[in-house]
Amino acid sequence: MTTFRDKLEQRIAATGSNLCVGLDIRASSADDATRAQILRIIEETLPHAAAFKPNSAYFEALGWRGMKMLEEVLAAIPGEIPVVLDVKRGDIGETQGYYARAAFDELKVDAVTLNPYMGRDTLEPFLKYADKGLYLLGVTSNKGAVDIELQTLHGGQRQVFEIVGEMTQASPQVGLVIGLTNAAGEVLARTPDVPLLIPGLGAQGGDLAALKGAGRKAPLLVNVSRGILYQDDHQSYGERARHWMQAIQSALA
Amino acid sequence: MTTFRDKLEQRIAATGSNLCVGLDIRASSADDATRAQILRIIEETLPHAAAFKPNSAYFEALGWRGMKMLEEVLAAIPGEIPVVLDVKRGDIGETQGYYARAAFDELKVDAVTLNPYMGRDTLEPFLKYADKGLYLLGVTSNKGAVDIELQTLHGGQRQVFEIVGEMTQASPQVGLVIGLTNAAGEVLARTPDVPLLIPGLGAQGGDLAALKGAGRKAPLLVNVSRGILYQDDHQSYGERARHWMQAIQSALA
Repeated sequence: MTTFRDKLEQRIAATGSNLCVGLDIRASSADDATRAQILRIIEETLPHAAAFKPNSAYFEALGWRGMKMLEEVLAAIPGEIPVVLDVKRGDIGETQGYYARAAFDELKVDAVTLNPYMGRDTLEPFLKYADKGLYLLGVTSNKGAVDIELQTLHGGQRQVFEIVGEMTQASPQVGLVIGLTNAAGEVLARTPDVPLLIPGLGAQGGDLAALKGAGRKAPLLVNVSRGILYQDDHQSYGERARHWMQAIQSALA
Repeated sequence: MTTFRDKLEQRIAATGSNLCVGLDIRASSADDATRAQILRIIEETLPHAAAFKPNSAYFEALGWRGMKMLEEVLAAIPGEIPVVLDVKRGDIGETQGYYARAAFDELKVDAVTLNPYMGRDTLEPFLKYADKGLYLLGVTSNKGAVDIELQTLHGGQRQVFEIVGEMTQASPQVGLVIGLTNAAGEVLARTPDVPLLIPGLGAQGGDLAALKGAGRKAPLLVNVSRGILYQDDHQSYGERARHWMQAIQSALA
């Protein structure tokens, strides 16, 4: 069995890239032009991509036709490239089983993001897919991260996101989403050495310096979405992906 | 403008029911038989239903055809009956705007459930739809509620769900999901008088006694899904809905 983590490590080694390309298309209709644009983004950014990460919201906003388009574009991604479906689902175990079916059986992605607010039992149906990966929201990249994620717990030693860090110990399948905008060195030092998915680079303004020399062994993905899809310059998608890939690799070197 | 809350209060007054019928169909295919079954559930339970609550997971598990079916069955629900789409979404504000479009513009539901883990700013795109309702996850009905939701915060006075309780003060549009299985009188006493959506009755085994005499003014919905759709007896959907409606009303009287 090739696990998500194996596949991701192989892809990072083959490309020398930790860039995750976010496929967050701002479209008004799931028409042929939109489909063609996403396929072009995939094709042009492919050489620089360790993984692709479509966020489900942008497809759901186009109704069921958007979900059909998502299924079609996912089928166009070559099999050796891991796909992380950014869905941030969290529900009771019974219901999570159906979300797992949606992601892994229907859309056939390699990994998903999950929201841990409802607790440990909400991971279980996803863990049953032993070859798949999960990223739990730890500290996200938005300003609301302070409201719950970064709250200090009774006793004054731990913050809420550290409970999520402990949840990752359930299986080597489980990683964390850690947003650089809100996670300086202290937060990173208190997250276990599990696969990290780092949003907040580019449009959201995160700083990769916090990751430098952290000595982590688990595979790392640094996501850029708007910085590749919607940056206001005259570069192609491929040129922007190469730019971000180089910025990431030199920051991590 | 008729708000979600107006519509819900009018429906509760008209039917004398606080029952929310959960449309959580366990199907293997989005075929005609499944569609006909859901339409029959809606038709039979209608007289006893204050609201309907489809959980998105059960439709997503059937791929884009399931989402198309969801759109079709929602269109069959009479306009005077509020529909709460149980999606538990939570993402950065930019992305939440697309989830709001999916629920309110595409599926045209009256209210949604949201996951508050990522903080206050994740509500904003939903609040812009002034006639719509939001229910934030406070204390859910699964055993994992203790992992984060019921953790005590620094200082020892407050629990995490009380932060969510404060978030509801942003607008009268905002209510809470409070699961009876984990929320005894003490939890209810510390939740503001906002619209409550109570899961965990029926198959999950919550006890309505905790709500008795709580003196709340905001409209209350008590959800039953499996207890109506999949109870192992010889009653029809309509008979089961009437049974649960009566049990709820006598507990609340």
